[in-house]
Amino acid sequence: MKFCSACGKPVNLRIPSGDDRDRHICDHCDTIHYQNPRIIAGCVPIYQGQVLLCKRAIEPRYGYWTLPAGFMENGETTVEGAIRECWEEAEAKMSQLELYTMVDIPHINQVYMFFLGELATPEFAAGAESLEVALFEEENIPWDEIAFPSVTTTLEHYFNDRKTGNYAVRTDTVHRKSTRAK
Amino acid sequence: MKFCSACGKPVNLRIPSGDDRDRHICDHCDTIHYQNPRIIAGCVPIYQGQVLLCKRAIEPRYGYWTLPAGFMENGETTVEGAIRECWEEAEAKMSQLELYTMVDIPHINQVYMFFLGELATPEFAAGAESLEVALFEEENIPWDEIAFPSVTTTLEHYFNDRKTGNYAVRTDTVHRKSTRAK
Repeated sequence: MKFCSACGKPVNLRIPSGDDRDRHICDHCDTIHYQNPRIIAGCVPIYQGQVLLCKRAIEPRYGYWTLPAGFMENGETTVEGAIRECWEEAEAKMSQLELYTMVDIPHINQVYMFFLGELATPEFAAGAESLEVALFEEENIPWDEIAFPSVTTTLEHYFNDRKTGNYAVRTDTVHRKSTRAK
Repeated sequence: MKFCSACGKPVNLRIPSGDDRDRHICDHCDTIHYQNPRIIAGCVPIYQGQVLLCKRAIEPRYGYWTLPAGFMENGETTVEGAIRECWEEAEAKMSQLELYTMVDIPHINQVYMFFLGELATPEFAAGAESLEVALFEEENIPWDEIAFPSVTTTLEHYFNDRKTGNYAVRTDTVHRKSTRAK
């Protein structure tokens, strides 16, 4: 951020009075511009014990597999964002979703929120951001080709929890030097 | 947003190619400026069955009671944000926190995340944004003077869950015309 989005004049980076960290401040119109983490809302769509994954048609991680997920938009709830992303990326209709994992990724200012739910029917197709969409049995999950650590973590939780039937909400943090699982 | 924060030229509001909603677009440097919901991270600090509340010294809702909470910052995890806010507003040190409620407030583009935990000792004091900080038994909670619906909802969940000992993560949505409880 170099310019004030309210008045167009250059901003300065310094700690405002009463604050304790650098902010972009406009000394022309006195606006303080705060920057905060963003939420990525997604789904863990299950059909008869199989998990629906999307092969990414966009960077980053083009060609790798992911759960359907994307940036939450203003004006929607987290679960509405998850449902929207599942439709956009996998053309799959989800309902009856429950919050399942929350994954903090502080070094890139992101928080993932994945919701778990059943697909009523095995109807899906590659949306604009997907090359391919498919259902995977646990033994066929392409662990070496998963796009993001937050997805790996969420899938690991799911297959572990399936053994006990206890799908309590799981919280995790992905750190900068995290190695991708498996 | 009226000006591009990257180059300072005026922005235009329209739907970018391949998108489906209005964005602030800079036609000078081709930056698309996305705006996304913000996370408010907070604590439900418990000491011997009492809940720690803060009387707000700032607007909005000056003089009303709240759980310690505030905007999550870049570079921290949600639980780190909750711990920081509890220290800033109530000078209380929390650890061993567990995610407890997530409250979507889509009309103001906010998502609250409250973490439940025990205060090790009854040490607290009013921080800069609080007039007063105090522990409340359930029968003394000032229900008519709670600052925000997300706090009311979270306190109601806590007192309900306390009867069963099941503090599963709760998700809620506060809508525009929500009336404050009680």
